[in-house]
Amino acid sequence: MYSIDVCLTPELLHLYPVEGKTVVVVDILRATSVMTTAIAHGIKEIIPVKTIAECKDLKDAGYLAAAERNGEMQEGFDFGNSPFSYMVDEIRGKSLAITTTNGTVAIKSSEEAAEIIIGSFLNISSVKNYILDNPNDILILCAGWKGRVNLEDTLFAGALIEMLRDDFELNHDGALIAHSIYINAGDDKLKFLHGCSHFKRLAKLNIQKDIEFCLEHDVYDVVPIVKEGKIIEVGELVPIK
Amino acid sequence: MYSIDVCLTPELLHLYPVEGKTVVVVDILRATSVMTTAIAHGIKEIIPVKTIAECKDLKDAGYLAAAERNGEMQEGFDFGNSPFSYMVDEIRGKSLAITTTNGTVAIKSSEEAAEIIIGSFLNISSVKNYILDNPNDILILCAGWKGRVNLEDTLFAGALIEMLRDDFELNHDGALIAHSIYINAGDDKLKFLHGCSHFKRLAKLNIQKDIEFCLEHDVYDVVPIVKEGKIIEVGELVPIK
Repeated sequence: MYSIDVCLTPELLHLYPVEGKTVVVVDILRATSVMTTAIAHGIKEIIPVKTIAECKDLKDAGYLAAAERNGEMQEGFDFGNSPFSYMVDEIRGKSLAITTTNGTVAIKSSEEAAEIIIGSFLNISSVKNYILDNPNDILILCAGWKGRVNLEDTLFAGALIEMLRDDFELNHDGALIAHSIYINAGDDKLKFLHGCSHFKRLAKLNIQKDIEFCLEHDVYDVVPIVKEGKIIEVGELVPIK
Repeated sequence: MYSIDVCLTPELLHLYPVEGKTVVVVDILRATSVMTTAIAHGIKEIIPVKTIAECKDLKDAGYLAAAERNGEMQEGFDFGNSPFSYMVDEIRGKSLAITTTNGTVAIKSSEEAAEIIIGSFLNISSVKNYILDNPNDILILCAGWKGRVNLEDTLFAGALIEMLRDDFELNHDGALIAHSIYINAGDDKLKFLHGCSHFKRLAKLNIQKDIEFCLEHDVYDVVPIVKEGKIIEVGELVPIK
């Protein structure tokens, strides 16, 4: 039986070997929610980069470019980190470079994995189905906040574990902690997350609408996957029958 | 209002500044449970050291000495990491050097704190009362397992937070995660921890009795505290009135 574990922050990733595993990267507020949204709305590919400078270089080379730090869009870029800004026809077929405070760091840190999937509540059932169809040892990597743990990514990890627990071995403490958080949270995620630090950070930026959207389940049926440094829809990998 | 936070493993401690704070170090299975027990049974002082070699040096200098790695007592020492071995008259008034897989590392890592307290379920109410009498910003430092998070230390952090939450600000995600674990665990800690990895590791070593003891509340009314590299009972600090 394959196993499932959770790494609560990229800062601990050196203790959780990823080689041969399927890594599900999650940054609920908001990087992986944004990536899921952008892919669902027809973006061809997303190039996650670590620094603002790299992102600027790609913008200069003709890419659409998104840069966020501390929850705020950076000057001189096309997009920040709000999923709603990607719900437009103009992005269809385009390439997007993106750098965010935590999410893109998590993706770049797991490059040794056999497979990297982008997870969010917006596509949680699609991710679950993909994993059941392509079983492997799973590591859910929470992006956290600047190396620290956070509540919303841990909650997502627990929700995905709840969907997979009948088919995967569940005996690692990171996974048990996340699952326990999910069980305790109950149905009202917004209420549960009300005290958490990033929630407060974003509330100050007046993006309550973003938060509520990022907590919705199964808005999109897409599985963004990282291939050769680019995030694409997994369906793009297989020839059309 | 003072705040309370939880660092889920010493591996993340560089992200949680300890200067000026009161750090509660916890390694439920079994280092801080053992230290609490030894102090309650009359040990004069405990010197936590990182390496087996340092511990051996102190043994050669006349100290009682305890060394544990991976749950097992190391050869050539007086004690391992079972609380029951400290329930003897022979330890009264003696000095003990100790090194364990995780617990002593956590203590040595928080040396910059204003105050370091040794916490366990065995003395949880005494720790709570001491904190209420000596209010400060609190960081509960879970010893974890070789840098990874663990369930039993996180559960203790949540239990202590439950006792302190009316008097401290509770808005850091590490603290919210720990508290949520405690709420979800319910009353049967043994059942809740049944799946966790260190529980299984120790069960193999046939020390179920140790585990059950380490989960009991308020067996002892002592507050071990670290002063100048030594763990002593906090009562030893103040002159007898």
